[in-house]
Amino acid sequence: MKLSTYCLLSLCFLLGSLQAQLSPEKSAMIADLEKNQSKYVSVADKIWSHAELGFLEDESTALLQKTLKKEGFSIKADVAGMPTAFIAEYGSGKPIIAMLAEYDALPDMSQKAVPMKVKSPNGNAGHACGHHLFGAGSVAAAITVKNWLKESKTPGTIRLYGTPAEEGGGGKVFMVRAGLFDDVDAVLSWHPGNENSADAGSSLAAMSARFRFKGVAAHAAGAPWMGRSALDGVEAMNYMVNMMREHVRPESRMHYAILNGAKAANIVPAYAEVSYIIRHPDMREVRKLFARVVKASEAAAMGTETEVSHEIIIGYFNKLPNQVLGEVMHKNLQMVGGVSYDTKEKEFAAKLMETYDSRDLVPESAEKVKDFEVIEIGRGGSTDVGDISWVRPTTGMRAATWAPGTSAHSWQAVAAGGMSIGHKGMMVAAKTLSLTAFDLYNSPELLKKANEELLRRRGEDFKYESLLGDREPPLDYRKGQE
Amino acid sequence: MKLSTYCLLSLCFLLGSLQAQLSPEKSAMIADLEKNQSKYVSVADKIWSHAELGFLEDESTALLQKTLKKEGFSIKADVAGMPTAFIAEYGSGKPIIAMLAEYDALPDMSQKAVPMKVKSPNGNAGHACGHHLFGAGSVAAAITVKNWLKESKTPGTIRLYGTPAEEGGGGKVFMVRAGLFDDVDAVLSWHPGNENSADAGSSLAAMSARFRFKGVAAHAAGAPWMGRSALDGVEAMNYMVNMMREHVRPESRMHYAILNGAKAANIVPAYAEVSYIIRHPDMREVRKLFARVVKASEAAAMGTETEVSHEIIIGYFNKLPNQVLGEVMHKNLQMVGGVSYDTKEKEFAAKLMETYDSRDLVPESAEKVKDFEVIEIGRGGSTDVGDISWVRPTTGMRAATWAPGTSAHSWQAVAAGGMSIGHKGMMVAAKTLSLTAFDLYNSPELLKKANEELLRRRGEDFKYESLLGDREPPLDYRKGQE
Amino acid sequence: MKLSTYCLLSLCFLLGSLQAQLSPEKSAMIADLEKNQSKYVSVADKIWSHAELGFLEDESTALLQKTLKKEGFSIKADVAGMPTAFIAEYGSGKPIIAMLAEYDALPDMSQKAVPMKVKSPNGNAGHACGHHLFGAGSVAAAITVKNWLKESKTPGTIRLYGTPAEEGGGGKVFMVRAGLFDDVDAVLSWHPGNENSADAGSSLAAMSARFRFKGVAAHAAGAPWMGRSALDGVEAMNYMVNMMREHVRPESRMHYAILNGAKAANIVPAYAEVSYIIRHPDMREVRKLFARVVKASEAAAMGTETEVSHEIIIGYFNKLPNQVLGEVMHKNLQMVGGVSYDTKEKEFAAKLMETYDSRDLVPESAEKVKDFEVIEIGRGGSTDVGDISWVRPTTGMRAATWAPGTSAHSWQAVAAGGMSIGHKGMMVAAKTLSLTAFDLYNSPELLKKANEELLRRRGEDFKYESLLGDREPPLDYRKGQE
Amino acid sequence: MKLSTYCLLSLCFLLGSLQAQLSPEKSAMIADLEKNQSKYVSVADKIWSHAELGFLEDESTALLQKTLKKEGFSIKADVAGMPTAFIAEYGSGKPIIAMLAEYDALPDMSQKAVPMKVKSPNGNAGHACGHHLFGAGSVAAAITVKNWLKESKTPGTIRLYGTPAEEGGGGKVFMVRAGLFDDVDAVLSWHPGNENSADAGSSLAAMSARFRFKGVAAHAAGAPWMGRSALDGVEAMNYMVNMMREHVRPESRMHYAILNGAKAANIVPAYAEVSYIIRHPDMREVRKLFARVVKASEAAAMGTETEVSHEIIIGYFNKLPNQVLGEVMHKNLQMVGGVSYDTKEKEFAAKLMETYDSRDLVPESAEKVKDFEVIEIGRGGSTDVGDISWVRPTTGMRAATWAPGTSAHSWQAVAAGGMSIGHKGMMVAAKTLSLTAFDLYNSPELLKKANEELLRRRGEDFKYESLLGDREPPLDYRKGQE
Repeated sequence: MKLSTYCLLSLCFLLGSLQAQLSPEKSAMIADLEKNQSKYVSVADKIWSHAELGFLEDESTALLQKTLKKEGFSIKADVAGMPTAFIAEYGSGKPIIAMLAEYDALPDMSQKAVPMKVKSPNGNAGHACGHHLFGAGSVAAAITVKNWLKESKTPGTIRLYGTPAEEGGGGKVFMVRAGLFDDVDAVLSWHPGNENSADAGSSLAAMSARFRFKGVAAHAAGAPWMGRSALDGVEAMNYMVNMMREHVRPESRMHYAILNGAKAANIVPAYAEVSYIIRHPDMREVRKLFARVVKASEAAAMGTETEVSHEIIIGYFNKLPNQVLGEVMHKNLQMVGGVSYDTKEKEFAAKLMETYDSRDLVPESAEKVKDFEVIEIGRGGSTDVGDISWVRPTTGMRAATWAPGTSAHSWQAVAAGGMSIGHKGMMVAAKTLSLTAFDLYNSPELLKKANEELLRRRGEDFKYESLLGDREPPLDYRKGQE
Repeated sequence: MKLSTYCLLSLCFLLGSLQAQLSPEKSAMIADLEKNQSKYVSVADKIWSHAELGFLEDESTALLQKTLKKEGFSIKADVAGMPTAFIAEYGSGKPIIAMLAEYDALPDMSQKAVPMKVKSPNGNAGHACGHHLFGAGSVAAAITVKNWLKESKTPGTIRLYGTPAEEGGGGKVFMVRAGLFDDVDAVLSWHPGNENSADAGSSLAAMSARFRFKGVAAHAAGAPWMGRSALDGVEAMNYMVNMMREHVRPESRMHYAILNGAKAANIVPAYAEVSYIIRHPDMREVRKLFARVVKASEAAAMGTETEVSHEIIIGYFNKLPNQVLGEVMHKNLQMVGGVSYDTKEKEFAAKLMETYDSRDLVPESAEKVKDFEVIEIGRGGSTDVGDISWVRPTTGMRAATWAPGTSAHSWQAVAAGGMSIGHKGMMVAAKTLSLTAFDLYNSPELLKKANEELLRRRGEDFKYESLLGDREPPLDYRKGQE
Repeated sequence: MKLSTYCLLSLCFLLGSLQAQLSPEKSAMIADLEKNQSKYVSVADKIWSHAELGFLEDESTALLQKTLKKEGFSIKADVAGMPTAFIAEYGSGKPIIAMLAEYDALPDMSQKAVPMKVKSPNGNAGHACGHHLFGAGSVAAAITVKNWLKESKTPGTIRLYGTPAEEGGGGKVFMVRAGLFDDVDAVLSWHPGNENSADAGSSLAAMSARFRFKGVAAHAAGAPWMGRSALDGVEAMNYMVNMMREHVRPESRMHYAILNGAKAANIVPAYAEVSYIIRHPDMREVRKLFARVVKASEAAAMGTETEVSHEIIIGYFNKLPNQVLGEVMHKNLQMVGGVSYDTKEKEFAAKLMETYDSRDLVPESAEKVKDFEVIEIGRGGSTDVGDISWVRPTTGMRAATWAPGTSAHSWQAVAAGGMSIGHKGMMVAAKTLSLTAFDLYNSPELLKKANEELLRRRGEDFKYESLLGDREPPLDYRKGQE
Repeated sequence: MKLSTYCLLSLCFLLGSLQAQLSPEKSAMIADLEKNQSKYVSVADKIWSHAELGFLEDESTALLQKTLKKEGFSIKADVAGMPTAFIAEYGSGKPIIAMLAEYDALPDMSQKAVPMKVKSPNGNAGHACGHHLFGAGSVAAAITVKNWLKESKTPGTIRLYGTPAEEGGGGKVFMVRAGLFDDVDAVLSWHPGNENSADAGSSLAAMSARFRFKGVAAHAAGAPWMGRSALDGVEAMNYMVNMMREHVRPESRMHYAILNGAKAANIVPAYAEVSYIIRHPDMREVRKLFARVVKASEAAAMGTETEVSHEIIIGYFNKLPNQVLGEVMHKNLQMVGGVSYDTKEKEFAAKLMETYDSRDLVPESAEKVKDFEVIEIGRGGSTDVGDISWVRPTTGMRAATWAPGTSAHSWQAVAAGGMSIGHKGMMVAAKTLSLTAFDLYNSPELLKKANEELLRRRGEDFKYESLLGDREPPLDYRKGQE
């Protein structure tokens, strides 16, 4: 891929269409980003190649920190008990605008940047959720904002939060719990996706835990009466949770996997383990549901004469939408526009789109920007951005880094994210975040209103208490899955 | 039925065959019984007609008490908190020999004394376990012994225990708990059956209870999340008990019926009830198993957010065999012999035997006496004689009051028990009990050895504690089933 | 209760407030109804006293038929295989406007018309869903319309459908299946309630069935291995349905009651029965869900070596809202107004309202008319009006025949429905239905639009097929519950 | 360990005690064995060090074959489709006496020959069932018999069957199925153990299978209604089997392990797998039970809308005891005597015995020989010797190769089996088998009677049909567990 051609064909065209609407300063920020695009793309591509799993992102975090340090950011590494977490900061005083960067990959995903399903030669992990773009794009925006702050001598601080292990490790939750966001005025984030949108969205609050049952081993043929089956405990718990489904609100979700259901049938199993995820659009409800599930686990142990303990693995708040910030983000996204494919990208996207049900979508769908919406009630997934959104005004966006209709966590996402389609989507995000930050630095009123909305939405008596309690970051939760 | 012919055809023949072996005194006892046979048959037939359920045996107990009183027995009625229980006593001093009389019928059994299945016009209850014969036959034996004691001026006491509600009410347990057997030297019992046998047998210890779950009602379509299903509680309990089956000794038995599984599907049920029976050849094991089942019920309530309580209904010890007494009983049964049918009885029996799988049996099988056996480990049923057998030396026998192969609790048992086949079987039992008592009065050594065997079998530290705890007799457990 | 005072205090006041808005013809209809009010109230009170259960409404249907016949209606009785169903008709030609009348009571409800919970001396059934008012009120409206048609010589036909057994018997379904509604232009209905509203509402489609399992009996202690438990079948079915909850759309409802879970624990049960209700806002979805539940029942039988069969008991379509008709009904309800209590009624209502959680409600809430709404997706209950609404344009309303906040199927509903509060609510409904019919006879355009809406809503390929298949009306489903 | 000392201390003592009872020829066989002991011990130790899992015993089988070949045996390798199976033969004509040799190790067992629990540096597998001794000891006996046959010019054939993968692979079953035992007159076997015994024993017949469920994956939070959980299938199957426990004979055993219960809770699992073992003292009953369990699996799939298939892994007949052969073996074992420890061995055994509940046992218990018993009904474990015992007269013995009270499959068994305690036990077995073979070659009458007993025990219509059907040997069932 030759970058110069790329620029000529698509981005320069994009710029043209924006010039009419953009202020000179915003135009300069766009130009700054485009000038440095190859640098940011290179960062993304390296992280894509590293494909490091949660809390094991040593190379990826080092690369991002180095990039920021070189640009004059001060770095606080190894924060909140997580070696791969960091905070990069530039400037001083209020307002403090934060941007988020993720960079962990997923297991069992190893692929190549080609439009067909292949196993890559080395390793299993892959960037099927596009966090290499997420990390590099946010860093690009932070540097661009820094450049403008510096040049314009605008007071204020830009911060980049390196948040590890989003996929099941919940790095952000520990950072929120440690108070690391307390002085921030607004948090801007984005996520790779299959369309361009700046909805003021929500997500499902979620708690997950591993329930570990201990029984008494015995020869299953010789003396099963001497044994107490830990697997009985797991199955009794599941049974009671399945009955509980009738007695929870329909928007609740409870799902489980038996991670250890005994190794051999000829022994009454002394150990068994089941993993649960509990979700609901409201984190308060998740807390209650989780307590009921824990009670079911204890009841199952009691009724099967086994013992149970549980370890909470993740605990994510639902995302509180912020309409004030969301509308600013949306306006800037509209100015930036979506992603335009060149001929090769169109072919690449078209090939990918043949591999799944893409219905009414065409490669050109990636050019559109979705109408703005406030989504009050989350559905589908969960994210550790949720916790941040309850303590500070937060908004995000999605950029079309994948072909239209692509599912997250698929090989198609790995493939598109590893080539120019992903790069273009990343640049859309970096630009939109930069312009949005510009607006916020220039409008104290917006920040005030965003904060008022937060206070109103979270209610009077809100006091942040992590769903995780005081557990330490599960630093080795991905060990053995590399 | 003309009794005189009956005597000529069968019983007189029987007597002939016995004369060689019987002492003059035993022969006189047999003669006494035969002389009064029509009186005892009449008592049995009246109780058969009353067919009163457990703890509701007002007419039946009154008839037995009147019969005994007329013979000079003193009566203690309404003992151990049970209005239909009584103790009849004659004589004084040691030894004290006890005989047991049952007289309760079964629900849903109403029949006639004809060899085909018909509904009787009045009522539902029927003597499908032959307790009318049990009661009348034991009374006949007690009177016969009394006559001999009186005439021979032998020191000692004969006692007849009227024990109500054997079928699920467990009258004897309350009598044992009240200490009413404490001064007895030996207990003689019998039971109607399909063969003649004096095995030193055992039975399964048993506890039964009703587990009552309370939940929270809610409209099952409108707001099931507001409800907590009591039926969920019952099903979760059953589930955990079904898993427990693998972890109990194979000779254990646990079975249940959901007596109340909600009335209508459109309401989350606030009430549900399940009845459990737990059995094992050893009452100590039943106590442990029952505790485990109770724990499963509490676990089920905990895991389904309901409440549970339980009421113990029956608690029977297993029967401890007594070889010493059993051998005496067996020898006398051999002398008495089995049941010989006349032509009409043979036809009646043959017709009955066509209605079930009677295999290698023929009507003449009723004439045989089974070889003696000591059955150490009970299987099949349970009886409240069990508790007695742990506190005092106890033995019993079965007489063929039903056609060979007949199941207890069947209409065929009702039918045969209501005519001369049943009467003849009853006389076999009455004779055998009388002769056995005679031997015991005459041999202090036998009583001593029987007691030693009891002490050895039940172990050193035995102290009687009813499986029922301190619950009162369930006097109305049959109300509404008449 | 003196009716004259009643009129002076409340209804005459009501009339006054309407006069401004009502056409002379509508005013005349109102006046006709008020003139005959005592007659209609008397009909309602008699049906309340009869309190006859579904398909057993012999007295109630006879009374309604007699009342209509006397007014010149022709009667077709015993229709669609249901002795207590009927169709009364007056006039000729198009349009044909239908009104619905229900008149069955509920079991276990026997009460008095006093504001406290008491058992009535005779019987158990009670009008806890207000169908005595439903029947008498619709008849009042039909007669009023007839009087106007006759006097004004307006062409067209008024029909009153006597629809038995709404509570679980589904009389209307059989009438729809028999084609008895095919020539009708619009169907008007109402239902007693705790507020006044003419929403174009929906309801949940529903199917219920009884699943009967047959196993093999065996002595549960002696030879449980010879038995196959029918109750195992029921519990395995329930288990698989409970797991299925995760895999049905959240708006689905599945609930069950174990109607027969065995009688005694000591026998492996050869028979067990579970009743299921399956609901969803869309009848097509119910059909699919029901098939899945049936499959689970067959699987349970297969896996427990038992046999299963099922009998469908009810099968109700969801109610299709009709906005065109609903708006006409709503305008007329607004003109008629809600229910105003006199002092005694206020006291009565206030006493009732103390017995449940009535929150922000006051007795005066009964005066209000709810704003109009189109409810596209049903929730909560189900009704056999659903089937009618899919074949002909149908709309309904609720009138406040019960104190504000009263639950249907409660003793409070029986009580209020048995005195003047219920009567007043019934008159509100009778008036609104009459006026609405008047509008429809006078506007062919409305009927055309209502029909177009129906065709649009039910989709192109719709062909009515009852959820019941070809089963006969369950004429004895309430036998034994009287 | 110095072998010469070893001999002086224990074996020579043993010899002394035997001389009185042994014929010269038998004495010579003993002497032959003792002379070559260090060679056989060396073979055993090498196999112990290889510790190869089932069907992967390449080195072990090669060593045994080489040893036998060198002694003049002809070798048929790679028989019955199993590369590590073989038959070694010497001599010609009748009678044909067979000896069995096993040599596979167990996974997750790696240990050292020290009396404490340690991990060995290389690998996981270990000889926790003593098959290295089993193989080497039987080979020793076969060579000894060969030497005698040759020297004495006795007609007849000695065969050594190398039977791989006893631990779950069931090598012998495939050899029986292939007819490889059809011409054998008697089969002699042994097994390492914690005591010396030549009971005519039985074992449980067993079948095991893996049930693989396929469902439909779906995002468990986003659209669980689109999914069908394969794990639901597994749990429904388990549920129905747990209920089935009440309805199988108490001596049946059914146990399971969920080998794959899904990897992650956030996806409705499309795949899940459960492994079952079904056992009973009678192989015909196992066949029936297995069919019932398969039916439950199909029912579970049906009721959860998943698919299931199963693969039978093992299928072992119960062992038919042969009293005729057993008594010959027992007499010879009595002559050979048990295992006497020297001081170091006593210390080693004592240390091991401290690590488990060894009750009344002392190291000296290893010297005893258990009284002879015919065990008609198997309990506890299962073995693929079962199939052989149904086609040809078979008997076996246990020698105390482990410290008294040691469990099979324990690290303690690995430890003792890897040093002189194991070696001594092996020699006891080799001697007993040699002497038993001697008796059989010399007594056609014994062989005839043994065969008559077999025919009587297995019944008239017996025709061998493997429980495995026609499945191929699962040659890779241990792959990945090394």
